[in-house]
Amino acid sequence: MGEAGSMSQSADDVKRILYVQTSGAEAPERSATVFFLAASGAAMDVEVGIYFTQLGPTLLQKGAPETLRIKKGGVPLAHFMEQARDLGVRFYVCQPSLDLTDLKMEDLIDGVEMIGGAAFNNMALEADRVVCF
Amino acid sequence: MGEAGSMSQSADDVKRILYVQTSGAEAPERSATVFFLAASGAAMDVEVGIYFTQLGPTLLQKGAPETLRIKKGGVPLAHFMEQARDLGVRFYVCQPSLDLTDLKMEDLIDGVEMIGGAAFNNMALEADRVVCF
Amino acid sequence: MGEAGSMSQSADDVKRILYVQTSGAEAPERSATVFFLAASGAAMDVEVGIYFTQLGPTLLQKGAPETLRIKKGGVPLAHFMEQARDLGVRFYVCQPSLDLTDLKMEDLIDGVEMIGGAAFNNMALEADRVVCF
Repeated sequence: MGEAGSMSQSADDVKRILYVQTSGAEAPERSATVFFLAASGAAMDVEVGIYFTQLGPTLLQKGAPETLRIKKGGVPLAHFMEQARDLGVRFYVCQPSLDLTDLKMEDLIDGVEMIGGAAFNNMALEADRVVCF
Repeated sequence: MGEAGSMSQSADDVKRILYVQTSGAEAPERSATVFFLAASGAAMDVEVGIYFTQLGPTLLQKGAPETLRIKKGGVPLAHFMEQARDLGVRFYVCQPSLDLTDLKMEDLIDGVEMIGGAAFNNMALEADRVVCF
Repeated sequence: MGEAGSMSQSADDVKRILYVQTSGAEAPERSATVFFLAASGAAMDVEVGIYFTQLGPTLLQKGAPETLRIKKGGVPLAHFMEQARDLGVRFYVCQPSLDLTDLKMEDLIDGVEMIGGAAFNNMALEADRVVCF
């Protein structure tokens, strides 16, 4: 690990999955899977990111994770979201989707990164797999 | 085929596609594509699996394939599903999605395998392509 | 560039992304992302195609791009669609989805190519990434 050779070896070995989330607070039953799978991946030392597009950014609105429940009487979305973040999953938001959902970066929870279309395509090409919801 | 060398050659050559199905019986118009494409793939000697998550498991409920019609007056979903199974397509169900859809394994048609998040991520990484619906 | 060797080198280097669009005119808020990202990709010299399946072909119906607005008061879909086409993005339509949406090839805008399941699977395997909406 401390040597350049093994570090580059290790860098080559790191797998990356990019998740894409298109549904938002309007479809609570579609909100948890991406965080559940992303957390599973991160726990396996896969480098995981989630790209929120279309209605997806509404899941990141301040207050949404705590109030949104996947199922009546179930745990709030925050449970799954925090698990993913604690394991190092990164959250990306699509710039035009903020427009679409009438949200501004300051309306979102902390730590979300805004990216454009070119950055998304590069990230998709650099990932080993892209999994879309 | 009978020799180790050619078998490993052959193993390398086998392509794999993992399909993901997120819609269920609530959206019949979204139910057939995955089976149609999976069957096409299997007929091309691609190793194909379908992972049913979110509302997808409701397509696997006993009785659903026979009664669900993609389009009014069209053939039932069973037509597409059986074609896929006959060609060797494997069906996987996501454990938390059973919970979400209030289904138990015994409510589902025979031959479905339940997998967790880590198994899904491994399967996605091992597949050549992941195609999500 | 003019030599066979460098051309084949260059051919190897071309990245391909296949986008899949499953939503149609019934969900305008889900209609623009695919064209926006496809155009971004094509501008990066990625070879990009979009496969329209399920309800997706309704976006290609003559007249739809000009009248469909992603958001009230926003630009029509044609804005994004033309940008993508001008950059060389190719449009493919799934044969059974035409049936599903009661559309015929002559109902669609010019330049759309119809492909079957086997062609889709081949295209997916040949692409570097498949991104589904």
